[in-house]
Amino acid sequence: MTEIGGATRVYALLGDPIAQVRAPGLLNPVLARRGTDAVLVPVHAPPADLTQVVRGLQRVANLDGMLVTVPHKAAALDLADRASDRARLAGSANALRREPDGTWTADTFDGDGFVRGLAGAGHHPRGRRACVVGAGGAGSAIAVALLDAGVAHLHLSDTDPDRLETLRRRLSAAYPGRVGATARPRLADADLAVNATPLGLRPDDPPPFAVAELPAHAVVADIIMTPAETLLLAQARARGLRAHPGEPMLAHQIDAYLDFFGL
Amino acid sequence: MTEIGGATRVYALLGDPIAQVRAPGLLNPVLARRGTDAVLVPVHAPPADLTQVVRGLQRVANLDGMLVTVPHKAAALDLADRASDRARLAGSANALRREPDGTWTADTFDGDGFVRGLAGAGHHPRGRRACVVGAGGAGSAIAVALLDAGVAHLHLSDTDPDRLETLRRRLSAAYPGRVGATARPRLADADLAVNATPLGLRPDDPPPFAVAELPAHAVVADIIMTPAETLLLAQARARGLRAHPGEPMLAHQIDAYLDFFGL
Repeated sequence: MTEIGGATRVYALLGDPIAQVRAPGLLNPVLARRGTDAVLVPVHAPPADLTQVVRGLQRVANLDGMLVTVPHKAAALDLADRASDRARLAGSANALRREPDGTWTADTFDGDGFVRGLAGAGHHPRGRRACVVGAGGAGSAIAVALLDAGVAHLHLSDTDPDRLETLRRRLSAAYPGRVGATARPRLADADLAVNATPLGLRPDDPPPFAVAELPAHAVVADIIMTPAETLLLAQARARGLRAHPGEPMLAHQIDAYLDFFGL
Repeated sequence: MTEIGGATRVYALLGDPIAQVRAPGLLNPVLARRGTDAVLVPVHAPPADLTQVVRGLQRVANLDGMLVTVPHKAAALDLADRASDRARLAGSANALRREPDGTWTADTFDGDGFVRGLAGAGHHPRGRRACVVGAGGAGSAIAVALLDAGVAHLHLSDTDPDRLETLRRRLSAAYPGRVGATARPRLADADLAVNATPLGLRPDDPPPFAVAELPAHAVVADIIMTPAETLLLAQARARGLRAHPGEPMLAHQIDAYLDFFGL
């Protein structure tokens, strides 16, 4: 990868936990191959310290952007001066860019990356019924992108009723008649079920939902990237369902990040 | 150098300007050779934003230390919870370390690195008369180290009378009878003259002092590392004086940094 010198431009990837993140390992070699003197560095920001960390990084004059992962995607939106329509609709951002005037713009590429990855694996969601489990930052962005990609119906679930209702109301207004929400996932008639919770990051996590409740033709998608084979995906495969891992969502975002940051 | 991943530990080098810093290019290859999964990243912190930047970085859970260069070495001392004796005496720090309890310890390696580099080039300062121009962070640390190394007399100069008098008083108390200070450098009887100002970093900077006033046997040392051959050193060589560049000061600090950070 690129040698880091004094003139190297810096990008930060914020998350908690941080050790599992894959973006530096994917993005830095691309920058090096292009001869771009820039580096993406992991930044472990505990939730209670996120605002102070971001406000500090925003004052770093050679830091041009941030990527944001679990659990900071909703909070990141409020730390920018403006946001794209899709990020506002999702209530979530995974990228912040410094503008020439020093203000910060937020956008989210999770949803677009997820849908591109899904379509690339032969599972285009158009006309399908989708169930997204987890209405946090990634889940919200994926829900928006699935609706934009033409799902017939989108069902949301989350254990936090306030968060769920806030997102349901915003999406129902933008996509009338196509959005439902309940605390428990509605799996029985789902063509596609997506884990958008952090469950699966830790070895002792329970599965985020019961694959036994899905129809036999369903696709089960996970956004967890580390481990590549989560308990959920293993259970889906064991039942004969099609399993779609987390990696393609990120891989399909790399070019979008480079465009967004002007790299 | 090391591939940066999610588990990579982060160190920040703070300065303003930043493009000229050499420490990342020296330290990162050492870390990579040792197989240490850690990286030193340049952080351009304007003086007005230093406190906010440092307070933000101190909350980053995978950031274990900071190096500090011009013009932040005095301010850095106040951003730590405790400091070494030499850093307190110099009123300056160039390294901050996170302790296991989350507090921060400051130390300075500039002076020690400078004296080791000077001695390594055959110019041991013991028994000599030294003139240090610039009573900022690096100059203060170098003054302390020269006194500890046994200079017969140390003369300080600086264009800021308050800063100069504060340092003179502190050093005179610790090393009675060996310290003098005036606004203009006292060069006529100096065996060693040290530029410890930032003059020379920018191509149109004037020389920090007049080499014509030095005796013919004097050694002229510069702490500027970029460019390697400053106007001051070129003028010294043109007069037939011995010229000592900035690089050895940093090179002799690398092992001290690694020890300090436990790397």
